[in-house]
Amino acid sequence: MKKLINKPEDVVKEELEGFAIAHPDLVKVHFGPDYVVRADAPVKGKVGVISGGGSGHEPMHGGYVGVGMLDAACPGAVFTSPTPDQMLEATKAVDGGAGVLHIVKNYTGDIMNFEMAAELARAEGIDVEAVVIDDDVAVQDSLYTAGRRGVGSTVLAEKVCGAAAEEGRSLQEVVAVCNKVKKFGRSMGMALTSCTVPHAGKPTFDLPEDEMEIGIGIHGEPGRTRMKIKTADEITEMLMDPIIKDIPFKAGDEVLLFVNGMGGTPPIELYIIFRKAVEIAEKAGLKVVRNLVGSYITSLEMAGCSITMLKMDDDLLKLWDAPVNTVGLRWGV
Amino acid sequence: MKKLINKPEDVVKEELEGFAIAHPDLVKVHFGPDYVVRADAPVKGKVGVISGGGSGHEPMHGGYVGVGMLDAACPGAVFTSPTPDQMLEATKAVDGGAGVLHIVKNYTGDIMNFEMAAELARAEGIDVEAVVIDDDVAVQDSLYTAGRRGVGSTVLAEKVCGAAAEEGRSLQEVVAVCNKVKKFGRSMGMALTSCTVPHAGKPTFDLPEDEMEIGIGIHGEPGRTRMKIKTADEITEMLMDPIIKDIPFKAGDEVLLFVNGMGGTPPIELYIIFRKAVEIAEKAGLKVVRNLVGSYITSLEMAGCSITMLKMDDDLLKLWDAPVNTVGLRWGV
Repeated sequence: MKKLINKPEDVVKEELEGFAIAHPDLVKVHFGPDYVVRADAPVKGKVGVISGGGSGHEPMHGGYVGVGMLDAACPGAVFTSPTPDQMLEATKAVDGGAGVLHIVKNYTGDIMNFEMAAELARAEGIDVEAVVIDDDVAVQDSLYTAGRRGVGSTVLAEKVCGAAAEEGRSLQEVVAVCNKVKKFGRSMGMALTSCTVPHAGKPTFDLPEDEMEIGIGIHGEPGRTRMKIKTADEITEMLMDPIIKDIPFKAGDEVLLFVNGMGGTPPIELYIIFRKAVEIAEKAGLKVVRNLVGSYITSLEMAGCSITMLKMDDDLLKLWDAPVNTVGLRWGV
Repeated sequence: MKKLINKPEDVVKEELEGFAIAHPDLVKVHFGPDYVVRADAPVKGKVGVISGGGSGHEPMHGGYVGVGMLDAACPGAVFTSPTPDQMLEATKAVDGGAGVLHIVKNYTGDIMNFEMAAELARAEGIDVEAVVIDDDVAVQDSLYTAGRRGVGSTVLAEKVCGAAAEEGRSLQEVVAVCNKVKKFGRSMGMALTSCTVPHAGKPTFDLPEDEMEIGIGIHGEPGRTRMKIKTADEITEMLMDPIIKDIPFKAGDEVLLFVNGMGGTPPIELYIIFRKAVEIAEKAGLKVVRNLVGSYITSLEMAGCSITMLKMDDDLLKLWDAPVNTVGLRWGV
């Protein structure tokens, strides 16, 4: 196993220690239970926005904590759901009196634990709502998921919900923004290589030197099909077609096009994919009005990419463009 | 070869096409000869700041073109120096009448071609100066280099020189800032894996499954030594010790500590390295007053990292903190 780590069991703790030292202007890191919280939390009168999930998808979620995005993130062990006590303590830490939104990716463990944390928080008098993101069109059920998996739209939901909360919207209004992303965002991914979870010490799956997997999940869950590696243009078509054919895209729609690297894919390859994805979107009559190209929701060092399209409207555009100050996304500040 | 590309010979062209479509607010891309230039170039009365080099190190250099950093970047083929005509045309495109600085990494091809371009530009009446960055303490001469290689300090030089130019300093003043980075910045890197240049189609070097290489260059040039993989903490010591022992660091110095990923290394590993690097720096009496953690000067999908330390003073701090608006670095705007 080729990794820059000490003991596998210390990976998340030591990473969080480094993260805390690097970014004291943006975040505080609480240990035992572990969560990353905005340096100025709780913000009185503001809806708190929280997400969380297994580690290994960085910069998601800790890298999205800061003004205009998440109030807190709960990192589990690598590819393992965080525990309810992490989510409960994070919820209490960001509660400014206006309620807290949990943005949850659709994985069984995440949902179960976030539900338990929400119940416990409500028992303590905090108004908590949850929205489950399930945007991956690749497969219906999966290894850790009933229904579709939650992937790239989560990053977009965290950005626009954070902006909505920042401008003082109510919990119900922020929930409505999140549900819009859930409804109008679709994703699909592929992998050229596996990744290696530190505890496991060996690749999650084997993929022969000349093969790729289309429709893979961010934990290496099986996708739709394995086949010989094709060109970037052909791969882009294989990802874009199912996304466009799914509801809710139609000619004339304005979209945000997000080409995401799985971790081990260089920027030059992502821009080659993006170039073709724009061409395909435009051929379908879609207008690409915003974009995001880079490794924003990763699977450790996996080589591959995913594409996410979100149908935009004036409000989502305004929320997307609003200032954000986090490690992973920063503009307008 | 597992890459998201079409034909190897089209990689740079198609990447630049995607880059241009993604970021029209920041840059324009000129094709034939290829260069990336600020959307508002030339800026009248401002010193132009240019860099360039082989592709495959993204976001360097094209990702650093924008307000407060580079005015233009010249991308060569992967790991291949750009040509003098690229540099000449870029120099002309950013000349606002106050002269142009070429920030050159110390590789023989880059230096030769930038020198030729500077001569041609001077013949057309443009005041051109060049500073060669040679901050890699690992080895004296190398595969493509006489003297030390230019690596991580280049990113820092581009940031502070861009800021100095932005606030209206003269060419000689911007050159002085660049020379300060050259004098006070030191780097060293290591690799866990090779990378594969698209044209070559196979890994640049072989590194057994249980070995790493210390002191490697950003094109896979041989380093100081190969050995069995050690822990992140031990590796950090092996990189930090030669940096600290080299001039010009001494107890009490304020430094910027930059932990860089080579491309295929996940953020969690970089923060583990950063955590230990801060501890080592502080033990040596250095004060880490700024930091940068991420993949900013890469070697395609190589797994590994490098560490750069730059001794700061009040002026460098001010220039580092100044607003910057590029794909790779963005704050204050």
